[in-house]
Amino acid sequence: MKSDIPVTSLQRLPVYLNYLKSLTSDGYISSGAIARALGMGEVLVRKDLAFTSAQGRTRVGYLRTELIAALEDYLGCNDKKKAVIFGAGELGKALMSYNGFSNYGIEIVAAFDNDSAKVGTYVGGKPVFDVESATQKLVELNPRLAVLCVPASVAQAVADTVISCNIKKILNFAPVLLHVEDGVIVRNIDVAANLAILSSMI
Amino acid sequence: MKSDIPVTSLQRLPVYLNYLKSLTSDGYISSGAIARALGMGEVLVRKDLAFTSAQGRTRVGYLRTELIAALEDYLGCNDKKKAVIFGAGELGKALMSYNGFSNYGIEIVAAFDNDSAKVGTYVGGKPVFDVESATQKLVELNPRLAVLCVPASVAQAVADTVISCNIKKILNFAPVLLHVEDGVIVRNIDVAANLAILSSMI
Repeated sequence: MKSDIPVTSLQRLPVYLNYLKSLTSDGYISSGAIARALGMGEVLVRKDLAFTSAQGRTRVGYLRTELIAALEDYLGCNDKKKAVIFGAGELGKALMSYNGFSNYGIEIVAAFDNDSAKVGTYVGGKPVFDVESATQKLVELNPRLAVLCVPASVAQAVADTVISCNIKKILNFAPVLLHVEDGVIVRNIDVAANLAILSSMI
Repeated sequence: MKSDIPVTSLQRLPVYLNYLKSLTSDGYISSGAIARALGMGEVLVRKDLAFTSAQGRTRVGYLRTELIAALEDYLGCNDKKKAVIFGAGELGKALMSYNGFSNYGIEIVAAFDNDSAKVGTYVGGKPVFDVESATQKLVELNPRLAVLCVPASVAQAVADTVISCNIKKILNFAPVLLHVEDGVIVRNIDVAANLAILSSMI
């Protein structure tokens, strides 16, 4: 069922969730009120929310707590999902220390690096392992997600390792296009490109 | 003219640019070859590239160096653009140390923080100023872009300050919806939400 949702709709679900969580009043909220608050079209909001199990009631809308629960359920916030980070540089360390992942049920369990000064240390309570031991550790840890914070020059090799250990979902911060087999999903976050895009927008 | 480009096309231009730069062979490259390498449709690639000044030639395609130059020109890689960072925590420091911005003509000139232990320090050669002095410093520095790496609880207040100093473009890492006046553009990067979206994709 989830495969029916367009990626653009899926991408908006955390936006609704964050907005609903930011409200303090309980009770009902209409799709129109959500749309106005977020500067979006009401029809679009209603269509997006229809992918979840939330039931809107005519004229009153959604019970806020139920809608939050439906969004959290859809986004898997209550399923525990383990993730690993490759590259314990500044960005990798920032992610290891970030506590916002648990809102989505994601637990960063470890990082891997090739710098012997980093191997054996802990960041945000998580261990940094030698990248040479990645294959063995990934079998033990069995994470579902990998986050690549490595230099562009080694990102493809790291992706190949990760995929060979049966991780099918990769969040890639390296500014390089990863070639992956069918069935593997890559999402890219190129921060510099995002800033350039922003700068080019009028 | 630039305002005619759809954001989705604009977002793909850095992908083409990174791919073309990764090639070592000179000479011509066709839109079909680019499309195959990136797993995209050829018509889409041709339409996207038509927004730039690049001139494809029948049957041979684009001269690689010319296409790179056209993409760099379109993305403003040769215009110097100053950016500031708010929040010199782990993520802010990671961005201050990152050297990929210069590829797009972006220079991070300073960061601001409210932690007295950080104020007065340098990260990646860039100063961390007291956020209390932001209004005055922003007048002096006159940056075009601001990157928010602050906690969600203070992101709106920081955005208001930034906008009052005539910065119209904000890259926001805080997981919160910013309310801004017309004419201000915000792009959001919510890393945890991106990982949740990835996890939810089938």
